[in-house]
Amino acid sequence: MSDTALSGPATPPDALALAQALIRCPSVTPEEGGALDLLARVLGDAGFAVERPVFSEAGTPDIQNLYARLGTAAPCLVFAGHTDVVPPGDAGSWRHDPFGGEVADGMLYGRGAADMKGGIACWLAATLAHLRAHGRPAGSIAFLITGDEEGPAVNGTVKLLDWARARGERFDHCVLGEPTNPAALGDMIKIGRRGSLTGRITVHGRQGHVAYPHRAENPIPGMLRLAAALLAEPLDTGTAHFDASNLEFTTLDVGNPSTNVIPAEARATFNIRFNDTWTAETLGAEIRARLERAAGNAVRFSLDLLPSNSPAFLTQPDAFVDLVSDAILAETGRRPALSTTGGTSDARFIKDACPVIEFGLVGETMHQVDECVAVADLERLTAIYRRVLAAYFAR
Amino acid sequence: MSDTALSGPATPPDALALAQALIRCPSVTPEEGGALDLLARVLGDAGFAVERPVFSEAGTPDIQNLYARLGTAAPCLVFAGHTDVVPPGDAGSWRHDPFGGEVADGMLYGRGAADMKGGIACWLAATLAHLRAHGRPAGSIAFLITGDEEGPAVNGTVKLLDWARARGERFDHCVLGEPTNPAALGDMIKIGRRGSLTGRITVHGRQGHVAYPHRAENPIPGMLRLAAALLAEPLDTGTAHFDASNLEFTTLDVGNPSTNVIPAEARATFNIRFNDTWTAETLGAEIRARLERAAGNAVRFSLDLLPSNSPAFLTQPDAFVDLVSDAILAETGRRPALSTTGGTSDARFIKDACPVIEFGLVGETMHQVDECVAVADLERLTAIYRRVLAAYFAR
Ligand SMILES: [Zn+2]
Ligand SMILES: [Zn+2]
Repeated sequence: MSDTALSGPATPPDALALAQALIRCPSVTPEEGGALDLLARVLGDAGFAVERPVFSEAGTPDIQNLYARLGTAAPCLVFAGHTDVVPPGDAGSWRHDPFGGEVADGMLYGRGAADMKGGIACWLAATLAHLRAHGRPAGSIAFLITGDEEGPAVNGTVKLLDWARARGERFDHCVLGEPTNPAALGDMIKIGRRGSLTGRITVHGRQGHVAYPHRAENPIPGMLRLAAALLAEPLDTGTAHFDASNLEFTTLDVGNPSTNVIPAEARATFNIRFNDTWTAETLGAEIRARLERAAGNAVRFSLDLLPSNSPAFLTQPDAFVDLVSDAILAETGRRPALSTTGGTSDARFIKDACPVIEFGLVGETMHQVDECVAVADLERLTAIYRRVLAAYFAR
Repeated sequence: MSDTALSGPATPPDALALAQALIRCPSVTPEEGGALDLLARVLGDAGFAVERPVFSEAGTPDIQNLYARLGTAAPCLVFAGHTDVVPPGDAGSWRHDPFGGEVADGMLYGRGAADMKGGIACWLAATLAHLRAHGRPAGSIAFLITGDEEGPAVNGTVKLLDWARARGERFDHCVLGEPTNPAALGDMIKIGRRGSLTGRITVHGRQGHVAYPHRAENPIPGMLRLAAALLAEPLDTGTAHFDASNLEFTTLDVGNPSTNVIPAEARATFNIRFNDTWTAETLGAEIRARLERAAGNAVRFSLDLLPSNSPAFLTQPDAFVDLVSDAILAETGRRPALSTTGGTSDARFIKDACPVIEFGLVGETMHQVDECVAVADLERLTAIYRRVLAAYFAR
C-alpha cells in the first residue's frame, strides 16, 4: 500500500500533512489507531530500521511502541514522543472534529495537535528534509515513540528504554517533543522537571456520639493540626533552576453521613512537586518528621508514602542546550527560558539514558476542547528542528 | 381475648411481667409490633380512656401512638415514653434473643429493656398498684406514648402533643421514662437538655493541576483555617445547670480521587450541643461571625445551618423536682444529680406543654447488643414511681 501524499522519493511530506495524517488516527490510549503504523511506513521508506515492540503487564492493556534508527555510529540524537492522546472529552462541544485534522483560519485542530502529534510531525518532517539536504548523518538519528504516555505509562517509555538498553542501543542526546511553550513558540525549553511525591495521612480516633464527646476521640481536630503543620513552613525556597517545592492537599475525607456521630478516622492525600533539594526519600523523611512533631502524643496517625518514579532531575545547561536555544533564537528572535516547571513527563525516565531537553509546540490548548496549533508554528518548529539536526551533526 | 398474666381484677401484673411482654413485641421503628395494643388493653382494663392516634406525613411511614387518661381534673401528671426500639443490629451476636425477654442471673435481656420498655413497664405497674391502693386520684394520670422516638420522630411526640392540645388536654407535670442513670439506679435525674445545632461549611476554590497551583485555588487550606477558627475558642464556659457548649466536626469531605488534581470544593459538617447561653439563632450568628472573621477576603465559603428543633431547655428545680428526688433518695439511699447532659430527647417537645423531668432505668447497655436491666432495678424503679404518684396526689 502506498499513500502518495506521504511517500515516494520526490517531495518529502511537510509537517502539516504529517500532523493531519496522525490526528486522523484515533489513538486514544491504549489504542494504536494507525499512528505508529504511519510513522513506521514513513521512517521505513526513509531508510530507518524500524522495530515495533509490544509491551504487556498483568492488569494493563498491551501497548504498541516504535523504535527506529538510521545509522549505527555515535553520536546518536534521539527524538522521543508519544502518539497516544487523551480522550476528546465532550466531542459534541468541539467546533472541529477532534480526529478530523481540519485547518481553519490558520489553525490546525484536533486531539494531539499540540500534545504531541504536531511535535512528532515537525521532527519527522525536519528529519526527512535534513536527509534530503545532507544525506546520512555522521552519527545516528533515532525515534523512541510510545503509545502509553497519557495512560498508566507502564508499558511505554520505561520498558522501551529497557528494551533498547538490552539491545545495546546507546543515545547521546534526546529531544522530547512535548508542548513546552506556555503561550508562544520560543518561550521555553524544559531542562528538568520537579519530582512528584504523593502521601496519605490517616488519623485514628474512636467513634462515638456527639453528645458524649469524652467517650469518643474525634480524629478531625488531629487531622487539622497535622495538615496545618505541613502547610505552615515552606519546604524550601527553590534552587538555581527550580521553583520552591510545593505541597497541595488533594483530598480530605471522613465520609460520615451521621450528624450525631463522631467518626473513627479521617484521611487526607497530599502531593508534593519538589525540586532538587530533595529525593523522594529525604522528602518523605522530612514530612514524617514534621507530622510526628505536630502529633506529639496527642494525635495517632499513620503516613503512607506512595512509591514515586518521579524524581526531580536537571539536565545541566551545556553545549547541547545552547545548540537548541540558538536554533530557537534564530527562528523566533527570542531566547527561550530554561525551565523546570510544569508536570512530570517521560523525560524523568529518559534522563537515565542520556541528557534530555524538551521543546515542542505551544501547549495552551492541550487536553482541552478544540486543541489546536498554528500552522505557522508547525512550519517554524520544523525549521527549528532542522537547525538542531544541522548543528548537531555539523559538530 | 384475655391474657391471664396481664389482666383480671385480682393481682395487677408486676413490672417484670409487663416488661417481658413488651420486649416480646417486635416494635422496631416504625413497627407497632403489638406493644401499644398491649398497653391499650391493660390501661383500658384499669379504667383509662384510651386513644390510638395514627399520624402520617409524606415520605415517612405512618406511626401509631397512644394517649390514655384516667380522670379529667387537674393536676394531671403525665408519663411520656416510646415503645419503639432501635434494631437489634447483629442479632447473631446476642447471647439472648433480642425479642425474647429472657431473665438470666437476675438480668432481663432484650431490645428495649432499658430504652425504654422497662421504664414504661415500671410506671404502668406503679400506676396499677397506686390505683389498687388509693383508688382514683384527686386529679388525673395520663400516658403519652409514641411509636416514633428512635426514628425520624416526625409522626410521634410533636404531633401527639399538638393533637392533645387541640383536644383541650392540659398537663401539669411530666415524667419521661428514658434511661437517665449512667451506671446505677438513682444516679441522675435530667432536668433539661442541651440544644443541638448542625451546620455545613463549603469552601469554594478553583480546580486545577497540582503542577500549576497558581492557576488553581485549593479550597483545603481555607477549610483548615475555618475549621481551626471554630475550634480555637470555647463557645462558653457553661452555666449554672449546663456544661460548656461543645462543637464537634462530624465529617470533612472533598472526594477527589486524583492525586494530581487540586479540587474545586471542600465540605465540612459540624454539630454543636449548646447550653442555655444560646438559642439556635444566636449561636448560628456567632458561628457565622467567627467564620467570616477567619475567612477575611482570603477564603470563599458558604454556611448552611440546618433547621434545629432542639433548643436548650431547663426545668427549673422546684417542688416537683424535689418530690422526684426525694422518692429516689428514699428507695436508693442516694440523692440523684440534676443533670442536663447527654443527647436530645422528646423532653424538648414536652417542655412547651408542662414542666418535664426525665428519670428511668440504667442506660449503660441501651442501643447495644445484649441490652439488659437488673430485675431488682425494675422493682426499685416501680417503687420510686409509686412514691412519686403517692406524693404527687397527696399534695
Ligand atoms: Zn504529551
Ligand atoms: Zn429512648
